[in-house]
Amino acid sequence: MKRVGFYGRVDPTRIEEYKRRHADVWPEMKQALTKTGWHNYSLFLRPDGLLFGYVEVPESLEASTAAMAHEEVNARWQTWMSELFEGSDVPPDESFIELDEVFHLD
Amino acid sequence: MKRVGFYGRVDPTRIEEYKRRHADVWPEMKQALTKTGWHNYSLFLRPDGLLFGYVEVPESLEASTAAMAHEEVNARWQTWMSELFEGSDVPPDESFIELDEVFHLD
Repeated sequence: MKRVGFYGRVDPTRIEEYKRRHADVWPEMKQALTKTGWHNYSLFLRPDGLLFGYVEVPESLEASTAAMAHEEVNARWQTWMSELFEGSDVPPDESFIELDEVFHLD
Repeated sequence: MKRVGFYGRVDPTRIEEYKRRHADVWPEMKQALTKTGWHNYSLFLRPDGLLFGYVEVPESLEASTAAMAHEEVNARWQTWMSELFEGSDVPPDESFIELDEVFHLD
């Protein structure tokens, strides 16, 4: 298992819509995440749109993101989300930037 | 149990020192964290000094930070760390800002 921290940038003018959609993520989307190894996955949002993610994955964020890229529901979800992200040239989940873990306590 | 995401600001000129100290946290400090309910606690650092924390606590970040304030080792640790943080008027652990959780998947 690998613990991953990452960040992204939600458009600050679309924060309420981002919250609404994430309060009610499609069941098929959740199933696809679980199937592709996304475990204990949380997203936190700063009022200016900075998004912080924490997730535990079998191998790497890259591998679990690649596995999601094969799920049809993810293509639909990311297309729907992309309008809420800054710099939406790539699907939001492929724009996340991984952070270095500098400390861990079990 | 409550999942908490928070952030702080490490002085960008002191990042290497911050990493060094956190690669080798004092055993008594880790014991105090465990004793006061800090579980599955990770710190992630962005190259510009933005620090992201993820931790699972019994009740709240506030309560677990308050419990640490009674641990003598924490006073020594925070004093030692404060020179590495921007705006070091308060102990670093009391300067952390909690983020809103907008999504979770077990």
